[in-house]
Amino acid sequence: MNFVAEVKVWLKAGIADPEGLTINEAISQLGYQGVSGVSSGKVFRLEMVADSEEVAEERVSELATTLLSNPVLEDYSASINEVS
Amino acid sequence: MNFVAEVKVWLKAGIADPEGLTINEAISQLGYQGVSGVSSGKVFRLEMVADSEEVAEERVSELATTLLSNPVLEDYSASINEVS
Repeated sequence: MNFVAEVKVWLKAGIADPEGLTINEAISQLGYQGVSGVSSGKVFRLEMVADSEEVAEERVSELATTLLSNPVLEDYSASINEVS
Repeated sequence: MNFVAEVKVWLKAGIADPEGLTINEAISQLGYQGVSGVSSGKVFRLEMVADSEEVAEERVSELATTLLSNPVLEDYSASINEVS
Protein backbone atom coordinates (compact mmCIF):
# COMPACT_ATOMS: atom_id res chain seq x y z
CA MET A 1 0.00 0.00 0.00
CA ASN A 2 1.23 3.46 -0.91
CA PHE A 3 0.91 6.39 1.43
CA VAL A 4 1.73 10.06 1.42
CA ALA A 5 2.51 11.48 4.84
CA GLU A 6 2.68 15.16 5.61
CA VAL A 7 4.59 16.21 8.72
CA LYS A 8 4.36 19.79 9.96
CA VAL A 9 7.02 20.93 12.40
CA TRP A 10 6.44 24.02 14.56
CA LEU A 11 8.54 25.67 17.22
CA LYS A 12 7.13 24.96 20.67
CA ALA A 13 5.25 27.77 22.38
CA GLY A 14 7.72 30.15 24.02
CA ILE A 15 10.58 29.47 21.61
CA ALA A 16 11.64 32.58 19.69
CA ASP A 17 10.46 32.60 16.07
CA PRO A 18 12.45 35.39 14.37
CA GLU A 19 11.23 34.43 10.89
CA GLY A 20 7.60 34.71 11.96
CA LEU A 21 8.24 38.04 13.71
CA THR A 22 10.04 39.44 10.67
CA ILE A 23 7.21 38.42 8.35
CA ASN A 24 4.68 39.94 10.72
CA GLU A 25 6.60 43.25 10.68
CA ALA A 26 6.92 43.13 6.89
CA ILE A 27 3.16 42.61 6.56
CA SER A 28 2.55 45.73 8.66
CA GLN A 29 5.10 47.75 6.70
CA LEU A 30 3.48 46.73 3.41
CA GLY A 31 0.27 48.28 4.73
CA TYR A 32 -1.78 45.12 5.26
CA GLN A 33 -4.12 45.39 8.22
CA GLY A 34 -5.59 42.69 10.38
CA VAL A 35 -2.75 40.21 10.76
CA SER A 36 -1.92 39.90 14.44
CA GLY A 37 0.56 37.05 14.49
CA VAL A 38 2.68 34.89 12.20
CA SER A 39 4.34 31.58 13.05
CA SER A 40 6.76 29.84 10.74
CA GLY A 41 7.43 26.14 10.48
CA LYS A 42 8.55 23.38 8.18
CA VAL A 43 6.56 20.83 6.30
CA PHE A 44 7.72 17.52 4.84
CA ARG A 45 5.93 15.23 2.41
CA LEU A 46 7.00 11.58 2.52
CA GLU A 47 6.05 9.05 -0.12
CA MET A 48 6.07 5.64 1.46
CA VAL A 49 5.14 2.01 1.09
CA ALA A 50 3.84 0.11 4.12
CA ASP A 51 1.78 -2.98 4.86
CA SER A 52 -0.93 -1.00 6.63
CA GLU A 53 -1.83 2.51 7.71
CA GLU A 54 -0.87 1.62 11.30
CA VAL A 55 2.64 0.63 10.19
CA ALA A 56 2.95 3.82 8.16
CA GLU A 57 1.80 5.93 11.13
CA GLU A 58 4.32 4.27 13.41
CA ARG A 59 7.17 4.83 10.97
CA VAL A 60 6.19 8.47 10.39
CA SER A 61 6.07 9.03 14.14
CA GLU A 62 9.59 7.59 14.54
CA LEU A 63 10.98 9.63 11.66
CA ALA A 64 9.28 12.81 12.88
CA THR A 65 10.84 12.58 16.34
CA THR A 66 14.29 11.33 15.30
CA LEU A 67 14.97 13.10 12.02
CA LEU A 68 12.39 15.69 11.01
CA SER A 69 12.03 17.59 14.26
CA ASN A 70 14.03 18.45 17.34
CA PRO A 71 11.75 17.34 20.20
CA VAL A 72 13.44 19.76 22.60
CA LEU A 73 12.44 22.80 20.59
CA GLU A 74 9.75 21.63 18.20
CA ASP A 75 6.38 19.94 18.03
CA TYR A 76 5.10 18.07 15.02
CA SER A 77 1.77 16.99 13.62
CA ALA A 78 1.37 14.32 10.96
CA SER A 79 -1.35 13.26 8.57
CA ILE A 80 -1.26 10.16 6.38
CA ASN A 81 -3.28 9.44 3.28
CA GLU A 82 -3.38 6.29 1.20
CA VAL A 83 -2.76 6.88 -2.48
CA SER A 84 -3.17 4.55 -5.41
CA MET B 1 -14.24 37.72 12.77
CA ASN B 2 -11.02 35.93 13.69
CA PHE B 3 -9.34 33.51 11.36
CA VAL B 4 -6.29 31.30 11.37
CA ALA B 5 -4.77 30.75 7.96
CA GLU B 6 -2.20 28.11 7.18
CA VAL B 7 -0.07 28.57 4.08
CA LYS B 8 2.13 25.73 2.84
CA VAL B 9 4.88 26.63 0.39
CA TRP B 10 6.50 23.93 -1.75
CA LEU B 11 9.15 24.07 -4.42
CA LYS B 12 7.64 23.66 -7.87
CA ALA B 13 8.08 20.31 -9.58
CA GLY B 14 11.50 20.15 -11.21
CA ILE B 15 13.20 22.57 -8.79
CA ALA B 16 16.04 20.93 -6.87
CA ASP B 17 15.17 20.14 -3.25
CA PRO B 18 18.50 19.33 -1.55
CA GLU B 19 16.96 19.26 1.93
CA GLY B 20 14.41 16.66 0.85
CA LEU B 21 17.09 14.58 -0.89
CA THR B 22 19.36 14.72 2.15
CA ILE B 23 16.55 13.62 4.46
CA ASN B 24 15.67 10.80 2.09
CA GLU B 25 19.29 9.59 2.16
CA ALA B 26 19.45 9.89 5.94
CA ILE B 27 16.28 7.79 6.25
CA SER B 28 17.89 5.04 4.16
CA GLN B 29 21.13 5.21 6.12
CA LEU B 30 19.24 4.91 9.41
CA GLY B 31 17.85 1.63 8.09
CA TYR B 32 14.24 2.64 7.54
CA GLN B 33 12.65 0.91 4.59
CA GLY B 34 9.78 1.95 2.42
CA VAL B 35 10.27 5.70 2.04
CA SER B 36 10.69 6.48 -1.63
CA GLY B 37 10.68 10.26 -1.69
CA VAL B 38 10.84 13.27 0.60
CA SER B 39 9.89 16.85 -0.25
CA SER B 40 10.56 19.76 2.07
CA GLY B 41 8.64 22.99 2.33
CA LYS B 42 7.65 25.80 4.63
CA VAL B 43 4.47 26.41 6.51
CA PHE B 44 3.15 29.65 7.96
CA ARG B 45 0.29 30.19 10.38
CA LEU B 46 -1.31 33.63 10.28
CA GLU B 47 -3.71 34.91 12.92
CA MET B 48 -5.93 37.50 11.34
CA VAL B 49 -9.03 39.60 11.71
CA ALA B 50 -11.26 40.18 8.67
CA ASP B 51 -14.85 41.13 7.93
CA SER B 52 -15.58 37.87 6.15
CA GLU B 53 -13.93 34.64 5.08
CA GLU B 54 -13.80 35.95 1.49
CA VAL B 55 -11.81 39.01 2.59
CA ALA B 56 -9.49 36.81 4.64
CA GLU B 57 -8.95 34.46 1.67
CA GLU B 58 -8.14 37.37 -0.63
CA ARG B 59 -5.64 38.82 1.83
CA VAL B 60 -3.98 35.46 2.39
CA SER B 61 -3.69 34.95 -1.35
CA GLU B 62 -2.00 38.36 -1.74
CA LEU B 63 0.40 37.73 1.14
CA ALA B 64 1.21 34.24 -0.08
CA THR B 65 2.24 35.43 -3.53
CA THR B 66 4.02 38.64 -2.49
CA LEU B 67 5.68 37.75 0.78
CA LEU B 68 5.46 34.11 1.79
CA SER B 69 6.45 32.45 -1.46
CA ASN B 70 8.52 33.12 -4.53
CA PRO B 71 6.08 32.45 -7.40
CA VAL B 72 8.94 31.75 -9.81
CA LEU B 73 10.20 28.80 -7.77
CA GLU B 74 7.41 27.91 -5.39
CA ASP B 75 3.75 26.95 -5.24
CA TYR B 76 1.55 27.50 -2.21
CA SER B 77 -1.67 26.12 -0.82
CA ALA B 78 -3.72 27.87 1.82
CA SER B 79 -6.47 26.88 4.22
CA ILE B 80 -8.45 29.26 6.40
CA ASN B 81 -10.46 28.46 9.50
CA GLU B 82 -12.62 30.76 11.57
CA VAL B 83 -11.75 30.72 15.25
CA SER B 84 -13.62 32.20 18.19
